[in-house]
Amino acid sequence: MDEFDLIRRFFRRPAVRSQTRFGVGDDAALLDPPPGQVLAATVDTMVAGVHFFPDADPAALGHKLLAVNLSDLAAMGAEPAWALLALALPEANPDWLSAFAEGLFALAGRYRVDLVGGDTIRGPLTLSLQALGWVPEGQALRRCGARPGDGIYVSGTLGDAALGLKMLRGELGWRDETAVERLLRPRPRVALGLALRGLAHACIDVSDGLAADLGHILTASGVGAVLEWESLPLSAAVRRYVAETGDWRLPLSGGDDYELCFTLPEAAARVLQQRLPAGAVAWHRIGTIQIEQGLSIKKGGKAIPLPPAGYCHFEYDDK
Amino acid sequence: MDEFDLIRRFFRRPAVRSQTRFGVGDDAALLDPPPGQVLAATVDTMVAGVHFFPDADPAALGHKLLAVNLSDLAAMGAEPAWALLALALPEANPDWLSAFAEGLFALAGRYRVDLVGGDTIRGPLTLSLQALGWVPEGQALRRCGARPGDGIYVSGTLGDAALGLKMLRGELGWRDETAVERLLRPRPRVALGLALRGLAHACIDVSDGLAADLGHILTASGVGAVLEWESLPLSAAVRRYVAETGDWRLPLSGGDDYELCFTLPEAAARVLQQRLPAGAVAWHRIGTIQIEQGLSIKKGGKAIPLPPAGYCHFEYDDK
Repeated sequence: MDEFDLIRRFFRRPAVRSQTRFGVGDDAALLDPPPGQVLAATVDTMVAGVHFFPDADPAALGHKLLAVNLSDLAAMGAEPAWALLALALPEANPDWLSAFAEGLFALAGRYRVDLVGGDTIRGPLTLSLQALGWVPEGQALRRCGARPGDGIYVSGTLGDAALGLKMLRGELGWRDETAVERLLRPRPRVALGLALRGLAHACIDVSDGLAADLGHILTASGVGAVLEWESLPLSAAVRRYVAETGDWRLPLSGGDDYELCFTLPEAAARVLQQRLPAGAVAWHRIGTIQIEQGLSIKKGGKAIPLPPAGYCHFEYDDK
Repeated sequence: MDEFDLIRRFFRRPAVRSQTRFGVGDDAALLDPPPGQVLAATVDTMVAGVHFFPDADPAALGHKLLAVNLSDLAAMGAEPAWALLALALPEANPDWLSAFAEGLFALAGRYRVDLVGGDTIRGPLTLSLQALGWVPEGQALRRCGARPGDGIYVSGTLGDAALGLKMLRGELGWRDETAVERLLRPRPRVALGLALRGLAHACIDVSDGLAADLGHILTASGVGAVLEWESLPLSAAVRRYVAETGDWRLPLSGGDDYELCFTLPEAAARVLQQRLPAGAVAWHRIGTIQIEQGLSIKKGGKAIPLPPAGYCHFEYDDK
């Protein structure tokens, strides 16, 4: 079986979008973004032994590889449309490829994403995906617009993926399947990103940890922020972990949550409430943007400075 | 140094295109293809030990990674505009990164390509790049339009890169710098691809070897072809190699040439001649599309069938 057979067998599916002129099978895909829209493009890579365990479930990997890219598009307020895949595989294992494709296409189908290009080669297991989408002229969510007085909000709950990783590593005496699932199959907040168009002053997805990612908003916007520990949305499992270990920084530093962190003026928060459909992901105010630079958190009446540390790929040796 | 420092230091440069709204530095790039154009998107990956020697010159790798993607866009008749880079590196070596970036940006500058996204992570040396460009509505060069009677053409010369690889491996008693350079720093045929818009019935770039890539045109178009050995454009080095070894198949099966192979009706060939500027790459007629399926070559008065074999990543162990 050569690479062309591989690509044909597992990754060539009929396009679901009318804007897909031509997908896999020529020198390049031909795509037709609607007029009046700006194209959003992002790429994310996952390496065995660095970003996932080498024996990880291939269906979960297919899901996550697409999810982390859709999360980037959601953080721009972009509607996802297309993906291109670059797969390096140690061997052409049909079972692995079939499960990987199943996980990827299940999520792609939910958001009407067409896989329009691919490159499958032999090499150390490395998964790279590039996603394209669009956002109406002038409505993209950037990192640089946060203003003093804005509320700081975050979707879902924080720290679950980092807790799930500790569980998979056997560092805890207990296990919570929801936390593990958050690590293995993150859910991109696409609907929330679309609802934030024209409302959020700044937005980012939480991939490297809340403190690090909010730090990018603060730097880009030239402002500071104060968070409130008691307002952080935490799952029962993370609450238990914090209570048992005293490690209250996990929800601030843990990566891989893929929630959205955004800033809104007061009035916009009320509009967002009305825009979001019933059953949409919850979102909570966790702090306030201020003029003074830096990031700190109020906890038990004290203000504690938070250095802008987060998940760092080149210093993170034992994942 | 963390990944953000890396990206900032080596890969953030001012945009040269007005259509680049925002490049590296947010969750996704924001791009603005001109109206009336169809977007062309492609991705190609190079793995150390599979596609290049692990100790290869990083500047040449940066050049080649972009060049092979621009070659894909050229084969669609698309004007290149943007690139997104996914780099997995065993270590954050500033010298390596600096040289790699220099090679990449030198070629990017020549074609006004903006690098608008990047992902730099730790892992086995794997270089993946995705390129975006555009082509006017209805003028993309596809593989599927070849018609019986079309002339088959190829740019430049064939087999040089494969010969260069033999030289680098020490398989020959002599060395030709031009052939080695063809392997290490292929030149994407961008101007030729643009000139072929609206003229070529079919087009592909020669990455896997002429027989394999022309085979894709034949399959997609439902036609066959006959080539003429005496018409193949060969460099002096390839002529010497064929004369010394008798291996006349090298120019047909050797990969990595990145020339364009295209089919034209008679009248279109004359128009192409007028369109191309002085100093453009040479192009030569090497055969004819015919109704009968299959690919053969006339050599010394005999017609020899050519099986559709070419460069195959999963069967190519010793590169």
